[in-house]
Amino acid sequence: MNSKFIVIEGLEGAGKTTSSLVVANILREHGIHDVIYTREPGSTPLSEKLRELIKNDTYNEEKITYYAELFVVFAARVQLVEHVIKPALARGTWVIGDRHELSSRAYQGGGREISHDFICSLKEEALGNFNPDLTLYLDVPPEISLQRVKKRGPLDRIEKESLHFFTKIRNQYLALAASDKQIRTIDASRSQAQVALDIENIIHQWLQEIP
Amino acid sequence: MNSKFIVIEGLEGAGKTTSSLVVANILREHGIHDVIYTREPGSTPLSEKLRELIKNDTYNEEKITYYAELFVVFAARVQLVEHVIKPALARGTWVIGDRHELSSRAYQGGGREISHDFICSLKEEALGNFNPDLTLYLDVPPEISLQRVKKRGPLDRIEKESLHFFTKIRNQYLALAASDKQIRTIDASRSQAQVALDIENIIHQWLQEIP
Repeated sequence: MNSKFIVIEGLEGAGKTTSSLVVANILREHGIHDVIYTREPGSTPLSEKLRELIKNDTYNEEKITYYAELFVVFAARVQLVEHVIKPALARGTWVIGDRHELSSRAYQGGGREISHDFICSLKEEALGNFNPDLTLYLDVPPEISLQRVKKRGPLDRIEKESLHFFTKIRNQYLALAASDKQIRTIDASRSQAQVALDIENIIHQWLQEIP
Repeated sequence: MNSKFIVIEGLEGAGKTTSSLVVANILREHGIHDVIYTREPGSTPLSEKLRELIKNDTYNEEKITYYAELFVVFAARVQLVEHVIKPALARGTWVIGDRHELSSRAYQGGGREISHDFICSLKEEALGNFNPDLTLYLDVPPEISLQRVKKRGPLDRIEKESLHFFTKIRNQYLALAASDKQIRTIDASRSQAQVALDIENIIHQWLQEIP
């Protein structure tokens, strides 16, 4: 079996980090040990710098425009795909990604209301037909997302956005997930054990179906 | 007369900085004293950080992909236009820009061979119909450009590119200038005084023509 790119998506506090570990454990049970983790934006030296620039409040006196935010996350994404994800897949390593292009369609599309077609045109031009093999969307109501995030500590620039902003993002995630078979929606408002069981079932069945 | 946005374009070493000062002097002779300078990428705190990331060789072990370069310069451009140029023009300040969107069409379009239509779509989506009022393209053969740049000191990531790369950029500049009346081409391989005289004549006549 060729190595695959599995993406975990969802709002802040949806449980993406924990779920990444769950996915890796399940892959291990299926004999797949060669796995790397990535996060977006980030996971290359340049992409981590770009992440810092848009997450950080240092530039708060200079509001980051929605388009600049979109372009920066795409710049970070191209670096990651070309320098990390594609080479990993080419040498047989599996990749578990904390966020990928669906995040742009949800955050910059749903949240910032930038045209969905425009965001897709960036992806198609810069990354061609490169896509995740499987995306797990961890669905939580924004109220729960914000509650969980506040318990973690100081909020970054994105986390400080309003409930209305995160509601728009969640609605966009749900709409996009409903129209794409590659995206599986998981109710992540439940306990970690219940979410892990869902992930296990999905990955197990998906692995069986891979030709 | 409303304030205007005048852009100076051209290869490295074409004389953009000197010409910016020449333009400001000529404006002053016409009674226009409220003038600011900008450079791209740069001229906001965030945009200067982005400039550093793509000019710097720190990330040399991580080659910057052509699309990441394009997205970063556009992110920097949107920040500059929204936070500096538009507010300046709105309060009656003139803006003299060292590079603007034509640079992307020449460098990332001509040099990196990214689709011209795609670059234009980024501009149209992110900046709408915002355009310079006048662009002075300082034309020099790439051989002269490179000679001048080498005399300045250590080369940055872009300046280290090949003669072939700069030849493609110059050809693109010439083609774009030929098809856009707002862009005036100046032979900048001549002496500074001769170039300044051309700029003076162009600005003088252009100011007369402004309704």
